Amino acid sequence: MTESTALPKVGRYEFLAEPFHCDFSKHLFVGHLGNHLLNAADFHSNDRDFGMNYLNTVNKTWVLSRLAVDMEEMPAAYERFSVETWVESAFRYFTNRNFRIASASDDSKVYGYGRSIWALIDTQTRQPNDILAVKDGEIMQYVESEKICPIDQLSRLRFTEKLQKVTDVKTTYNDIDVNCHVNSVKYIEHVLATIPLDVYKEHPIKRFEVSYVAETYYGDTLHLYSENVSPLEYIVKVTKSVEGDDAETEVVRARIVLKD
Amino acid sequence: MTESTALPKVGRYEFLAEPFHCDFSKHLFVGHLGNHLLNAADFHSNDRDFGMNYLNTVNKTWVLSRLAVDMEEMPAAYERFSVETWVESAFRYFTNRNFRIASASDDSKVYGYGRSIWALIDTQTRQPNDILAVKDGEIMQYVESEKICPIDQLSRLRFTEKLQKVTDVKTTYNDIDVNCHVNSVKYIEHVLATIPLDVYKEHPIKRFEVSYVAETYYGDTLHLYSENVSPLEYIVKVTKSVEGDDAETEVVRARIVLKD
Repeated sequence: MTESTALPKVGRYEFLAEPFHCDFSKHLFVGHLGNHLLNAADFHSNDRDFGMNYLNTVNKTWVLSRLAVDMEEMPAAYERFSVETWVESAFRYFTNRNFRIASASDDSKVYGYGRSIWALIDTQTRQPNDILAVKDGEIMQYVESEKICPIDQLSRLRFTEKLQKVTDVKTTYNDIDVNCHVNSVKYIEHVLATIPLDVYKEHPIKRFEVSYVAETYYGDTLHLYSENVSPLEYIVKVTKSVEGDDAETEVVRARIVLKD
Repeated sequence: MTESTALPKVGRYEFLAEPFHCDFSKHLFVGHLGNHLLNAADFHSNDRDFGMNYLNTVNKTWVLSRLAVDMEEMPAAYERFSVETWVESAFRYFTNRNFRIASASDDSKVYGYGRSIWALIDTQTRQPNDILAVKDGEIMQYVESEKICPIDQLSRLRFTEKLQKVTDVKTTYNDIDVNCHVNSVKYIEHVLATIPLDVYKEHPIKRFEVSYVAETYYGDTLHLYSENVSPLEYIVKVTKSVEGDDAETEVVRARIVLKD
């Protein structure tokens, strides 16, 4: 690809806050926003030829490792919004990808921002692969380190003895995606369901963070534990167990910060 | 509205089978297809001024009563597909709305068809309202009775003593939509989860039908019962109970027909 045909480093995609993707407050569910961010990442990387479409031909795939969204406000039902996405940095074993979510009709109306971290794995061995070895590090030409993403970095989450079991969820057909494991967005939904709806009525979600530690498969049971670290902040640990074995393995850590 | 400015009776909308809206087989989930059909219905009726946007101003709303989809094939991940929708007939207390799902790039490649029945209710009393009284029956000018919808009518579902409990599902934040009740698509997901994923591996879904009998609210528990009426056909009854009371009320009936 020559310099003249290269796409801009920042990709911009428009989405609709579909009415039935909105919660009781008539604002987009965080899970559906997350899905749109993943779509934007997918479109951006495919358009620039370092996405799944190319990677699958060489038995590699991107894996979302961490995601944070920090929102002043969520798009309301029927609103069109834009997602800008760009690679802030790329290293051997991970890339930082950012997001900016704004009104599609008025770009100065910013809903919020997102941060994510991705790894590259071999689809057969499931082991990490060298990102910079793909097409001689072509991804580097798309790194955009100047564009501002004015939200906090992803937190390190530490659980204490105050962590309490909230619920168990048996995974079903609906949790399993094209990669035959529990879909990233489904964990977000299960984690958000640990907080009663009445709490969300008073305190909408300000920030959501999730770290993906291990994969879960069909039929496994998820165990959700939560700790209320401050009045408006919850950290959630998700473990899994396989049928017929009580042993639990950590699969996800998450953090929910609510508005005052 | 004069005859010359009227929109065509049939509306056509394009959608993308988003990768993370696809199941393990890399084909669109029936629930997400259902959501797109509901969007198409919403767009079609709003564009013609008998949709929610207008109705909400007069304290009325459409309620989906029944839905069937009958698919030769489901759109695969990344495929663009079109949904045509039209009102086949309109009566005082219900309308029949049909759907045709085809490839967006090749209209002769038909994925399948859908049928639905809608009622109009008063948002305060939740009682049925006279559809033909809205704007002096303006909906009648959009009735398209000639366009073919070559799939079976909705079935009458009769359960026998072979009906067996499959699972209970406590409703969560994620189930509740902008109307503050369990979303129509969420029931579809809960019903489809009554069949093990291994069955879907051998037998994809051919036809899905659902009847909405009553509403469910946040915190209610859904109870799912299934009956295997023939090797490739299941009927499912969903009841609800409210916290602290074991009494169950029927909320949904559904039918799943699998491919041979």
